[in-house]
Amino acid sequence: MSDTLSDSALDRIFREARTPNGWHDKPVTEQQIHEIYELMKMGPTSANQQPGRFVWVTSDEGKKKLAACASDGNKDKILAAPATVIIGYDLDFHEQLPWLFPHTDAKSWFEGDEDARKESAFRNSALQGAYLMIAARALGLDCGPMSGFDKEATTKAFFADQPRYRADWLCSLGYGDMTTVFDRSPRPEFGTFNKVV
Amino acid sequence: MSDTLSDSALDRIFREARTPNGWHDKPVTEQQIHEIYELMKMGPTSANQQPGRFVWVTSDEGKKKLAACASDGNKDKILAAPATVIIGYDLDFHEQLPWLFPHTDAKSWFEGDEDARKESAFRNSALQGAYLMIAARALGLDCGPMSGFDKEATTKAFFADQPRYRADWLCSLGYGDMTTVFDRSPRPEFGTFNKVV
Repeated sequence: MSDTLSDSALDRIFREARTPNGWHDKPVTEQQIHEIYELMKMGPTSANQQPGRFVWVTSDEGKKKLAACASDGNKDKILAAPATVIIGYDLDFHEQLPWLFPHTDAKSWFEGDEDARKESAFRNSALQGAYLMIAARALGLDCGPMSGFDKEATTKAFFADQPRYRADWLCSLGYGDMTTVFDRSPRPEFGTFNKVV
Repeated sequence: MSDTLSDSALDRIFREARTPNGWHDKPVTEQQIHEIYELMKMGPTSANQQPGRFVWVTSDEGKKKLAACASDGNKDKILAAPATVIIGYDLDFHEQLPWLFPHTDAKSWFEGDEDARKESAFRNSALQGAYLMIAARALGLDCGPMSGFDKEATTKAFFADQPRYRADWLCSLGYGDMTTVFDRSPRPEFGTFNKVV
């Protein structure tokens, strides 16, 4: 593997990547979705918890159901995007730890402590969602993350068969229409929110 | 910029990257820390909140202070790593939104709602921590994320001057001793935690 990424690669995943507000009419295939997951699942989570649960919405029916749960500003974006993934988590992810983290009895760390599970599921599924966005960009797609939606309604609509799963945020995927991008918001100088000690 | 990343680049940031448990005696420079931040700050956060607050611990004194707040299994790792960053967040990040997100009055969305601020700060600072790890790997470093430490003691020790900041997790950075890596934990098949609808 390379020692460092090229400038061109860094541009793609960080420096030049932007959030579009409209999408070209070009599908995201199920194979691309699998390729994203094969990359993102390699990213680190605490004790390999992998608490994220993902619903990739690509059908017209699915998009309508999800748009119905979204804030007004996001409904049209969801209907227009070729795919939107619901990033959720499992409040009982610890049940999977015996096979996900076979080195030790990590399940016992979380038994009887739902607050600790919720915190860890929330933090680590967010990490997984970030890996998802970087992986999608690395494979040539654009990302449109969103948090304006009804989480409870989305949980009911998409995780009805899994009563311990919770929807947390959304990310549209596709080929962005770059005429719909807002001006880049300012980024802080190092010293504003960092210190070295 | 490139359309997609090379296999070699994907190996570096996802497929071949591993969490070391020991570190080579080679420093992480302040310039490298700045380079990481210049990349990670470009990653998307909701309404450009950038709620993460980062303390990069590189001095012997800082490492000792942080190791004193860590669980027994992490103390030696912190002392050995050339740098460990404390990923924290600002419960009052909304005060910065007038300049970080000048498009609209996003500050008003969060005024008087500390629960909403805490949730958004927690989720979005986790995203920023994931960008930090990918950026560090992209620049040739290895990462050792950790959540076994006393968050309250660390908050007191490192954010004493900022009463609304909270420490959330840690990540060591450096050149990993790959003889200290554990066997790769299993990764789920797509169908285990995903569905396409």
